[in-house]
Amino acid sequence: MLPTVEWTGDSVVMIDQRKLPSTEIYVTCRTAADVARAIKTMVIRGAPAIGVSAAMGIALGLSKSKATGTKQFTTEFQKTCDLMAGTRPTAVNLFWAIDRMKRAFAEAAQGGGSVDEIKARLVVESQRIHDEDVASCRTMGAHGATLVPDTARILTHCNAGALATAGYGTALGVIRAAAAQGKTIAVLADETRPFLQGARLTAWELVRDGIDTTVITDNMAGSMMRLGDVDLVVVGADRIAANGDVANKVGTYSVAVLAREHDVPFYVAAPISTIDLQTANGDGIPIEERNDREVTHVGSSRLTPVGARVRNPAFDVTPAKFVTAIITERGIARPPYQESLAALVGGRQ
Amino acid sequence: MLPTVEWTGDSVVMIDQRKLPSTEIYVTCRTAADVARAIKTMVIRGAPAIGVSAAMGIALGLSKSKATGTKQFTTEFQKTCDLMAGTRPTAVNLFWAIDRMKRAFAEAAQGGGSVDEIKARLVVESQRIHDEDVASCRTMGAHGATLVPDTARILTHCNAGALATAGYGTALGVIRAAAAQGKTIAVLADETRPFLQGARLTAWELVRDGIDTTVITDNMAGSMMRLGDVDLVVVGADRIAANGDVANKVGTYSVAVLAREHDVPFYVAAPISTIDLQTANGDGIPIEERNDREVTHVGSSRLTPVGARVRNPAFDVTPAKFVTAIITERGIARPPYQESLAALVGGRQ
Repeated sequence: MLPTVEWTGDSVVMIDQRKLPSTEIYVTCRTAADVARAIKTMVIRGAPAIGVSAAMGIALGLSKSKATGTKQFTTEFQKTCDLMAGTRPTAVNLFWAIDRMKRAFAEAAQGGGSVDEIKARLVVESQRIHDEDVASCRTMGAHGATLVPDTARILTHCNAGALATAGYGTALGVIRAAAAQGKTIAVLADETRPFLQGARLTAWELVRDGIDTTVITDNMAGSMMRLGDVDLVVVGADRIAANGDVANKVGTYSVAVLAREHDVPFYVAAPISTIDLQTANGDGIPIEERNDREVTHVGSSRLTPVGARVRNPAFDVTPAKFVTAIITERGIARPPYQESLAALVGGRQ
Repeated sequence: MLPTVEWTGDSVVMIDQRKLPSTEIYVTCRTAADVARAIKTMVIRGAPAIGVSAAMGIALGLSKSKATGTKQFTTEFQKTCDLMAGTRPTAVNLFWAIDRMKRAFAEAAQGGGSVDEIKARLVVESQRIHDEDVASCRTMGAHGATLVPDTARILTHCNAGALATAGYGTALGVIRAAAAQGKTIAVLADETRPFLQGARLTAWELVRDGIDTTVITDNMAGSMMRLGDVDLVVVGADRIAANGDVANKVGTYSVAVLAREHDVPFYVAAPISTIDLQTANGDGIPIEERNDREVTHVGSSRLTPVGARVRNPAFDVTPAKFVTAIITERGIARPPYQESLAALVGGRQ
């Protein structure tokens, strides 16, 4: 399985997703600040992977604390949590993972645990988050594969794969599970400008797995659907509001509108940790605007002239009405999402 | 005005559109084969500009003919026309321009003209095609500007500007005319992968003209419309079928679907020479598939992994039902296009 992010005992190691597919380089984070920087600069990205990394970053940072008393240790823990929370605003898995670490801390501290005991508990919790994420992806894949016909041409946007999670992937987990069941799968991967997660990461993952993969520029998706070359769409999510509105990589909304125009099912695959019942609808989801350079340059090539302005919202919101179903590890939610999502999050199905 | 393509007397000079905006280099074509190669490799592109270049290329090639009799000269002329016709399949202006050159040849030959007289006539005809194209763009701009509100945020896709024509532009002609009338215009330019005509050429042209221009990746267009940031869309065309179906740069179809979803007017600006009444509808328009490298690389950066396939259709077809109006130099066509386009082409309005 792909080594997206690993805990080594005294560091967190990640494959540098900015360098793929041409180079496989691993980045070793030795401090919480290293991990925060890696998240911010997109060494690692993808909502579930961001959550796992933040948890590991907190465990890493605190494991190296020189605090002798719990008071000082608690202050350091808070600061480290704040550092992680400030990295990226849209993926709710980040805040979910930080909350889990806070609960683990509180539990360990409440029992009168020593600094060393709390340290150990934080490492265990970050490992649990990691391992649960992989397990979630596999279960999600099994649920999602029931929606995939025996022969299917599947369009996906961005990378919701092993690299976006602790392993296996959400949208790509569905594709992997369908392929593993012997279904005949061909994937159309939107290249996903500006960061090119589709061309660079999704294609790289799927080709490694021997799955038939064709990269298209984002603006070809509509034409492919019109020509009848897409049977279904499956994408990941960075945050799903209580009403089923989905924030995901910019361009997802266009794909959803095009899918409905062509009666192509549009599925979202995401773990329960991506569902944010505290946010009523998509209007409440903060959308990160990233730096211009991602749009103005590719590698060393400058694309735009000096004097032209640039927009770079990293995400967009797809209203729930465009979403055919939401695939989670606890089952598949269908409209109306207000009820179906609340039931899944509450553990009822 | 921008020097898209010029006749110098013994060569055809073009600005190299592959190198913009970082470098302004001019390519000097000394033979018809040079011009054909320039069209094929997209030194010059844009349906009207391709037509003008092909005409100039024919005039250039024949002006250097060593033929002494009209029989040999006619054979050379035919070969040169075939060479030009083989460059790119979608833009009908290419074939329209070649036909005009054939009629000019026939007229000059019919009158018993000498080889030198025919040569002169071909040069005159190519210049006429050039000059008429500029005039058409200006008239088209004036017609189109009537559709633009006093304050308008206009989205355009690809480059339908001075660089795509002999000068001034079709879609960008409409924008220029509206700006010249004192309207407050802000342009959103789709970057237009894979060749990036929007980021590289449209932004470059508009910034030179002092028009407020913001480049977005193609996949942001839908989101911008949903946020209410687009008042109208105007694009060019490579071929318009008799029923109003429009072939244009790949991605145009997606923009059209998104525009209709958001009740944003979707206008096409193109000269009469782009209307192909011989082609009943979009299904009859040949769509060029270009080489993989345009998708797999930007500059020296490789984007996709080895083993991933790629699609690269250069154009797509937007069905007439998505087109609010078609702006030509003879006036504005509205649905039903079967009648309105036939009337404009026939010279009736």
